[in-house]
Amino acid sequence: MSGNGTKLPLGFRYAATYGGIRKVAKDDLALIVSDTPASAAAVFTRNRVVAGPVTVALRNLAASRSRMSAILVNAGNANCATATAERVAIESSRAAANMLGIAPHQVLPASTGVIGVELDVRLIVNALPLLRAALSPVSFDAAADAILTTDTRAKTAFATVKGAAIAGMAKGSGMIHPRMATTLAFVLTDAVAPPSALRAALKHAIERSFNRISVDGDTSTNDTVAVFANGASKVTPPAQAFAEVLAEVLGSLARQIVRDGEGARKFITIDVSGAPSDSAAEKIARSIANSPLVKTAIAGSDPNWGRILSAAGNAGVAFDPRKADIDMQDLPVCRGGLAADFSEEMLKKKLDGPECSIRFMLRGRGRGKTRFWTCDFTEEYIRINASYRT
Amino acid sequence: MSGNGTKLPLGFRYAATYGGIRKVAKDDLALIVSDTPASAAAVFTRNRVVAGPVTVALRNLAASRSRMSAILVNAGNANCATATAERVAIESSRAAANMLGIAPHQVLPASTGVIGVELDVRLIVNALPLLRAALSPVSFDAAADAILTTDTRAKTAFATVKGAAIAGMAKGSGMIHPRMATTLAFVLTDAVAPPSALRAALKHAIERSFNRISVDGDTSTNDTVAVFANGASKVTPPAQAFAEVLAEVLGSLARQIVRDGEGARKFITIDVSGAPSDSAAEKIARSIANSPLVKTAIAGSDPNWGRILSAAGNAGVAFDPRKADIDMQDLPVCRGGLAADFSEEMLKKKLDGPECSIRFMLRGRGRGKTRFWTCDFTEEYIRINASYRT
Repeated sequence: MSGNGTKLPLGFRYAATYGGIRKVAKDDLALIVSDTPASAAAVFTRNRVVAGPVTVALRNLAASRSRMSAILVNAGNANCATATAERVAIESSRAAANMLGIAPHQVLPASTGVIGVELDVRLIVNALPLLRAALSPVSFDAAADAILTTDTRAKTAFATVKGAAIAGMAKGSGMIHPRMATTLAFVLTDAVAPPSALRAALKHAIERSFNRISVDGDTSTNDTVAVFANGASKVTPPAQAFAEVLAEVLGSLARQIVRDGEGARKFITIDVSGAPSDSAAEKIARSIANSPLVKTAIAGSDPNWGRILSAAGNAGVAFDPRKADIDMQDLPVCRGGLAADFSEEMLKKKLDGPECSIRFMLRGRGRGKTRFWTCDFTEEYIRINASYRT
Repeated sequence: MSGNGTKLPLGFRYAATYGGIRKVAKDDLALIVSDTPASAAAVFTRNRVVAGPVTVALRNLAASRSRMSAILVNAGNANCATATAERVAIESSRAAANMLGIAPHQVLPASTGVIGVELDVRLIVNALPLLRAALSPVSFDAAADAILTTDTRAKTAFATVKGAAIAGMAKGSGMIHPRMATTLAFVLTDAVAPPSALRAALKHAIERSFNRISVDGDTSTNDTVAVFANGASKVTPPAQAFAEVLAEVLGSLARQIVRDGEGARKFITIDVSGAPSDSAAEKIARSIANSPLVKTAIAGSDPNWGRILSAAGNAGVAFDPRKADIDMQDLPVCRGGLAADFSEEMLKKKLDGPECSIRFMLRGRGRGKTRFWTCDFTEEYIRINASYRT
């Protein structure tokens, strides 16, 4: 699943450059091109306030009947809540299309960065020749680097399914909430998949990946997860297998985002079982994952299971606390809603590591379960976000 | 409204002592006694996981037909999620009742502190004689001090209505979420008010006070707001006037809790107007108040209105962002969803003070509005909560 033995999908080229959108001279533009029109599927933010590129991407996806050729991304400016947001997305997409000899609606635009600051479209248009010159089938990593903002490292994932290759890149470390496709992620595959099958596979995969993570409970205006399948491998994987592998790739990207959560030092896996339904289990997991008191306790290696129980009690799911068991780091800390007999000192030591597991189990007939990922909440998160623009 | 010119209600006595529940030798027990049975009304946590004293308080309120005489509170232990939680609440209430010569169901028990640690009932029972000896009509402040946990200061509020006196005390600085009566608050009045009128007044007042504040989005297992009216003044204030003054007292206590929010340096008032309904306005205000990105931006004096707009967009309320105006510190920062022309330097300076105002206004026909209070989110919150038990 990870970077070792990576095989990039056939028929895609990548480029990155610095267009002057960021204040620091670090690549802030990425272009991904499929040599032939690819089946495209994408999910977007559910925030009422949406960035210009999201509006335009949705429109282009419809206008192209889900056959697209390029992804044009900028970091450093969300192109959102400005007078020209939509126009900038349209004009930059059109300029890229002209340069590439494709139709404007075959370009999927995306942006990430600060909200409410005008983005000068010339910064993108002027950089397009540099991007074209840089296009290469092996520059995947350069593109994955260019889309980052407060991320401390790139997020990529690779897989193959029946001989077809899948490669994904993502960005995101704050403003992350699991109600949706979160942050930016682009997945390229040379598998053969008609748009309808790609949409179904993406829907399946998103539910098992980006919809199961949380960093800080905020949802961005720009979230976009897009999959392009150009068929260059001539392999048509079975739908089920393809969906599963796509879920693996998106799951890996989603977990990498959590690991790189702003200020995060610990990666927390939350398993909920015995709930009345899977969606009830997810509500409980989400409530635990979003509780600042749970997240700060983990930061402090404090086995404060009472906060976990209390957060579960706030999920809006009916359950009997006397039937609740909790494990932390595979040690029982709560049985039947009461303290289990465990060594607090030993558990504190176990919690000092970079991985934390929480299991919340309801005894009884419920079969609902879920797995959810989040990170701890540290002073560094505050430092990053209190000074993001300054 | 505040402490100056305080007139305590007639017919109440107060006591505080140290019973050994806290690790540090600071008063951790408070007793409030009405000389005659008082009309009682209370609201409690909506968390599925409720502490023993909440269960017992609800039961006693019903058994006494809302005529109660005493409030017995401990800090340092939530008496929640332990094998003996309910028994401890019952036995300590019974012992207090025996000592005071009243029926056990005339005692309202309440606890605050750590969850999941057994509370030894003998610590309370053994301290009862000390509490009785300390009972005095002027020891209101001592009781208000004894119920605090991570609070840095006591919260009290006083008012009179048509000659009747009202005095309130509250505790709370973390685990505060506005979906309900939050944390502990006790209000005593010598007004004449039958239980039904008291309940109606409390319902009115809670909606305008504790249901409009947020510190960290967590909801405790112990939240209790109780009002006792013993009629000792023989004044029967008009229902409307009484409800308004009660709302003022509870509003003052609620705002004091926000001001003392864990790690808080800034007090934030959020006004939303022009929403489709008052409840829609409240959803928007709550979403802004609970956004870690908004709260950290305020901590950093960053006039990042884009985060406010984005948080509003996540409220689950349909609105057109192009009709959204935002003011910060009375300066327009966003008009019609776009940046207004303001001096960022000047606004940053204005945001350095301890008070912050955010106005979110939707243009159009909507009449829904609300006012909401929260605090900024600082590194100190993390420090407090990562080490709460250690």
